[in-house]
Amino acid sequence: MDDLARSFSSAFQTIKITLCYDGTPFVGWQRQANGVSVQGLLEDALGRFAGEPIPVIGAGRTDAGVHALGQVASARVPDRPDLDVVLPRALNAMLPEEVRVLRVEVLPAGFNARYAAREKTYRYRIVNSDLMPPFERFYAWHVTGPLDPDLMRSSASALVGTHDFAAFQGAGSGVATTRRAITRSSLEARVALPGAGPGSCLLEYEVTGDGFLRHMVRTIVGTLVEIGSGRWAPDRMMRVLESRDRRQAGPTAPAHGLFLVSVQY
Amino acid sequence: MDDLARSFSSAFQTIKITLCYDGTPFVGWQRQANGVSVQGLLEDALGRFAGEPIPVIGAGRTDAGVHALGQVASARVPDRPDLDVVLPRALNAMLPEEVRVLRVEVLPAGFNARYAAREKTYRYRIVNSDLMPPFERFYAWHVTGPLDPDLMRSSASALVGTHDFAAFQGAGSGVATTRRAITRSSLEARVALPGAGPGSCLLEYEVTGDGFLRHMVRTIVGTLVEIGSGRWAPDRMMRVLESRDRRQAGPTAPAHGLFLVSVQY
Repeated sequence: MDDLARSFSSAFQTIKITLCYDGTPFVGWQRQANGVSVQGLLEDALGRFAGEPIPVIGAGRTDAGVHALGQVASARVPDRPDLDVVLPRALNAMLPEEVRVLRVEVLPAGFNARYAAREKTYRYRIVNSDLMPPFERFYAWHVTGPLDPDLMRSSASALVGTHDFAAFQGAGSGVATTRRAITRSSLEARVALPGAGPGSCLLEYEVTGDGFLRHMVRTIVGTLVEIGSGRWAPDRMMRVLESRDRRQAGPTAPAHGLFLVSVQY
Repeated sequence: MDDLARSFSSAFQTIKITLCYDGTPFVGWQRQANGVSVQGLLEDALGRFAGEPIPVIGAGRTDAGVHALGQVASARVPDRPDLDVVLPRALNAMLPEEVRVLRVEVLPAGFNARYAAREKTYRYRIVNSDLMPPFERFYAWHVTGPLDPDLMRSSASALVGTHDFAAFQGAGSGVATTRRAITRSSLEARVALPGAGPGSCLLEYEVTGDGFLRHMVRTIVGTLVEIGSGRWAPDRMMRVLESRDRRQAGPTAPAHGLFLVSVQY
């Protein structure tokens, strides 16, 4: 059966899979020639369940080391009763413990996790302290030297709206447009992290938008840290945005602080 | 110089080192013939700093996989100015990122981290959910099936006081007395853990006492879970305690849920 025929066969169901993963050991979401990918693991597990190859489509391609609390994938699988109950158990039994399927929903044919996504929410975690707590080493960026959360917060909120984010786009992506609508861009600071010494602070940046360019969240965060450290003036964020020039923005923050929190449909 | 002479030489200072570590990759606190121990790493780093072997004494021997937020160690090191500032930086530069020295204090000669300890506080973390969030897999015990936190809480509080804890002692320890004074034994429950699915709960058991027998906290937790699951009656905790018989207590909870939180002097 070819792909098109299979897509509309009544012997198949379209499913939406919500999953979380610790990105530390993976080459990222996307299947690659070398290394273990989350997509590859999920496709292999679905293939074993179905007895035939099952391609999956992810809502967002997370890079190596990036985590997900609520990644979403879609697939077409052979129809069986109670897929929403049977499939999460079967998949979790086959997947390594770094990946957990939270939910499987049966949706109308044609649902595509990537194209149907209305908005995505990402979180970026920064530990601002002299010492990096060992428990955070794979889940936050360690920034030493004081950061001013208020300066970062106002710069973050300036990004809300529809803008051309070309200045925050990593090299090597060929998207048609670099305009994106950001509906939320906020920063929370929590003090006194266990194991981080006195004066430590956990900064959590959350951003929601209709789409994100390659490395966009990490480049926003890299710019926020430049501003929070006082090295750059607070109005620099808007000037970077207006420049549409990647060289004006801050460094790309490391992947392991980033979490794909949820995908809205 | 022999050990005794060195202990009282004015060319040496007695230091108290407070450190945290992720116990996942280690064979435990104590130096062993095979595998990497926290004590071994700390002694090696101190030895490189001092230019001679420096033995350290830990307040508590944590088992393989057990973590510490505030382990304490004592040592005698060659006198140098500003040890409290210089030494944490030097040690953290030499230690792997799984171990961080939080603080170094210079104390009067004769301070011994083990014998001077007045009380210790341990925390044990349980994730009660269908799914184990990947981010918790090295830092909590995953218990499926419902647990009643109220039953566990009242059983936990029944342990406060001075009792013979022989029933909670793991095999292979030869201590002089199995009486210990517990000043705090409490349980907190937090609902809705990210990535653990609906109905998930994080249970944190905290216990403070003047000393702990081998596997004592983990055996208390194993017993609490039997009670919380409804398999054992709530009064079982006191009957186990009174029996002084290890076979009456619950299973030893896994090491990776346990944290040495602090040592009081």
